Amino acid sequence: MTQERRGGGRRSRLERSGSAIPQLPWQRVENPYPPMQLLDEERMEALHATSMRILSELGIRVMSDRVMDIFEAAGAIVDREEKIIRVDESIVMEALKTVPSSFTLTSRNPAKQITLGGNALTFGLVAGPPNVHDRINGRRQGNLADYKNFTRLAHFFNSIHIIGNQVVAPIELPANSRHLDTYHANLTLSDLSFHCTAIGRERAMDGINMMAIARGITLDEMRASPGVITIISVNSPRLLDDAMTDGLIAMAEHGQPVTVTPFTLMGAMTPVTLAAALAQQNAEALFGITLTQLVNPGAPAMYGAFTSNVDMKSGAPAFGTPENAKANIIAGQLARRYNLPYRTSNANASNVVDLQAAYETEMATWGAVLGGANMIYHAAGWLEGGLTASYEKLVLDVEILQNMMEFLRPLPFQEDDLGFEAIKSVPAGGHFFGSEHTMSRYTTAFYQPMLSNWQNYGSWTEAGSKDALERATEIWQQALRDYEEPALDPAIREELDAYVARRREEIAASGE
Amino acid sequence: MTQERRGGGRRSRLERSGSAIPQLPWQRVENPYPPMQLLDEERMEALHATSMRILSELGIRVMSDRVMDIFEAAGAIVDREEKIIRVDESIVMEALKTVPSSFTLTSRNPAKQITLGGNALTFGLVAGPPNVHDRINGRRQGNLADYKNFTRLAHFFNSIHIIGNQVVAPIELPANSRHLDTYHANLTLSDLSFHCTAIGRERAMDGINMMAIARGITLDEMRASPGVITIISVNSPRLLDDAMTDGLIAMAEHGQPVTVTPFTLMGAMTPVTLAAALAQQNAEALFGITLTQLVNPGAPAMYGAFTSNVDMKSGAPAFGTPENAKANIIAGQLARRYNLPYRTSNANASNVVDLQAAYETEMATWGAVLGGANMIYHAAGWLEGGLTASYEKLVLDVEILQNMMEFLRPLPFQEDDLGFEAIKSVPAGGHFFGSEHTMSRYTTAFYQPMLSNWQNYGSWTEAGSKDALERATEIWQQALRDYEEPALDPAIREELDAYVARRREEIAASGE
Repeated sequence: MTQERRGGGRRSRLERSGSAIPQLPWQRVENPYPPMQLLDEERMEALHATSMRILSELGIRVMSDRVMDIFEAAGAIVDREEKIIRVDESIVMEALKTVPSSFTLTSRNPAKQITLGGNALTFGLVAGPPNVHDRINGRRQGNLADYKNFTRLAHFFNSIHIIGNQVVAPIELPANSRHLDTYHANLTLSDLSFHCTAIGRERAMDGINMMAIARGITLDEMRASPGVITIISVNSPRLLDDAMTDGLIAMAEHGQPVTVTPFTLMGAMTPVTLAAALAQQNAEALFGITLTQLVNPGAPAMYGAFTSNVDMKSGAPAFGTPENAKANIIAGQLARRYNLPYRTSNANASNVVDLQAAYETEMATWGAVLGGANMIYHAAGWLEGGLTASYEKLVLDVEILQNMMEFLRPLPFQEDDLGFEAIKSVPAGGHFFGSEHTMSRYTTAFYQPMLSNWQNYGSWTEAGSKDALERATEIWQQALRDYEEPALDPAIREELDAYVARRREEIAASGE
Repeated sequence: MTQERRGGGRRSRLERSGSAIPQLPWQRVENPYPPMQLLDEERMEALHATSMRILSELGIRVMSDRVMDIFEAAGAIVDREEKIIRVDESIVMEALKTVPSSFTLTSRNPAKQITLGGNALTFGLVAGPPNVHDRINGRRQGNLADYKNFTRLAHFFNSIHIIGNQVVAPIELPANSRHLDTYHANLTLSDLSFHCTAIGRERAMDGINMMAIARGITLDEMRASPGVITIISVNSPRLLDDAMTDGLIAMAEHGQPVTVTPFTLMGAMTPVTLAAALAQQNAEALFGITLTQLVNPGAPAMYGAFTSNVDMKSGAPAFGTPENAKANIIAGQLARRYNLPYRTSNANASNVVDLQAAYETEMATWGAVLGGANMIYHAAGWLEGGLTASYEKLVLDVEILQNMMEFLRPLPFQEDDLGFEAIKSVPAGGHFFGSEHTMSRYTTAFYQPMLSNWQNYGSWTEAGSKDALERATEIWQQALRDYEEPALDPAIREELDAYVARRREEIAASGE
């Protein structure tokens, strides 16, 4: 209901401006098709067995005494000198039993609650780039103004379900408190859930607290109905740093979901073979997820995958490669083997929004969708291997996501859809443009694209010969003009402002 | 063997020029994965039943008395006045029994024999555009010089398996004999099989005769080992013109494969619903394939699909849409239901080689591959809804096809690929760049792209900030420089020249 009213309001403003950007309505996306299986059961078992050997024989290095205590209490073998934790399969399998196979994430707009698990598919805004780029203003360092614009665009474009962890770093703000500014922007400029920064316990707690304020609920209520999520990156190979595990523990303790994503670029952070990379990714992801359950059995957690290759000539990361697409599919097989919700990405390595950016993103997107991903992270705006958040790339990505959403929509298949009578009504060699069957359906029969231009060459030339990149610029500019800030109870707004002010002072005082 | 020697020769020339374009070797591509199923058995049965009602109750209009005779002899009900042939399911099913589920196509280079059927996947050059475009010389009408260049590129790029029917029309040549010039170019500038023009019996026969000459075999030997193929387009809805059926009959009589492809744009040539479009496509395709078997039981034939939608605002054709991707998959389900080799396309509707051209092509390519296509026609060079053959698009497409070929390559999965010892050899937090496991594999571990650039932003900028489109121009220019005409026995060359000269005179004299 809420989003319908909001949508109605938006339409009326767009009608006044006469410039509505065609887009699909906000919706929960479901992938109705069985995921693709690239590996048979025997090979899946071999991957699992290798992962278990990695965990039990080689172990994972952690910098946190608390994590060592937790695993030791669970029966793991902890080498305090080397800071290596070796975990037997039985401990891991026992822990995985309590992970929910599916969970929800509820923002301050309950109508936009999303599900992570099952056949639900969600798309996340790009997260983390130090730079930002658009065709008009060029490439620049991350800053709060651009952060806010990307947040507005994430709110505006219905296919973006969740805000990633810091779409761009607002580097003009103090590093130790800028998370407060970005959380504040997320909660005031959009009504979406977001990833909070889990570098240390405090940043995670600020995200949890601020979402609870925005929703007008207590931390206990948030525990029963998670509102924020985080990603814990593993410093592959086999290393988890202190701040990350602190963040993980804070989130798990409060019942907020944790995605554990090893950073596994083949040939650099893993062996050069995909089988080995996946075995290592699997070991590292399961280690982190095991930790969430040792902290708080039943806490929601996601299996994260980020396996791609590097350019072996330069060591530069590559994305959207054939190997990356395969990894996206097999990682899904692994996640389902353990009954875990599955997060992956659809990244690309291009330096510019060009053909390469498009085809690499498509390769990775298809891999993710065929792999049964529940969340495609970095799905809108990722450029330059993740070093730049791009306005035009965001528009391109929204088009790619919308195309995929429509591909996943089941086919209407009633008697009338089979159209025998319609075919009978048109003579051989005739056409169906004016037939009643067409007229009654044509406005909704096909996906209406946002970025694609289907004019013939003459009309397209007369209209200025604008290619898709130029049109993408016009679309994000229009979207920012059409954007309307979602209503927020002034009392909640005040409470959020006060929280940020207080915490900013505390952080400044502590000299963290 | 032949292509290895040829490849060796090419490499040595490239080494001299110092400018090798990285590309995959010539290969037979197999799709090892089960095709995607968008429709369940019940819905497939409903599609089939609707198609059979279309054929038996509504019928297909044909302009040829001979075709009416053939169907009448087979028991169909022929309305001579309306020129409508109504065919019962039993006639169709009986005819389909004799279609080979798989066949080979052998060019003058037997090492490049391709299979059409089973899990074989082949890629065809774009066919038919009246215009041609490249970034240096702009858009122009089709001509023989560009025809020849595209033929050279099809020979040069190993991922292109077959030359389509007239990549561009050489419009400066007489319309009634230009097929001789294009066949001659196909057979001298490349060593690939090609689609011959089947507008009328004579054009088909010229293609068959010239391929037989090039292979040094008789028409009887060609009958046992097909060398050319054609596409018969249905003028949907439900109309087959005279020239097309003459061409079909000539090909089938001589044992050369016929692809029957209805031209079914939803909302224009079919009802606006995908289910109806597929039912109609299926009826029309099966009608043409039935004709091939009535002419010559056992003649090779392919199920052709070209179902996409139009822009309902303008009536302009759209390709690479979500509907087109679904159609590509379900058409594959239909083809396999009848045990027929399956041809489809991966078209796009962009007017320029831009983001749209890339993502629409990717959507359609994934639909085709997931649909189990045996031939993706128009797979390299298609632009502007098929009205332009584009040099840069061809390069983009080769990259897309190569990525797909690598995606389809089964994963190495030996004990050593699982890499436990390699993982053990690198400490937590270390890297694998210099490890023995990496060093012994890194040159071949990953697909090396042709068009993608994975330099970091700084290096890329220093190298001139060339986007993928600019690089595509450089690649086709380099490919034309590196191209080497495949050797051809001078006696065969002479015979081909003489055939063309004689036929040109005959055609001029006949005033056809």
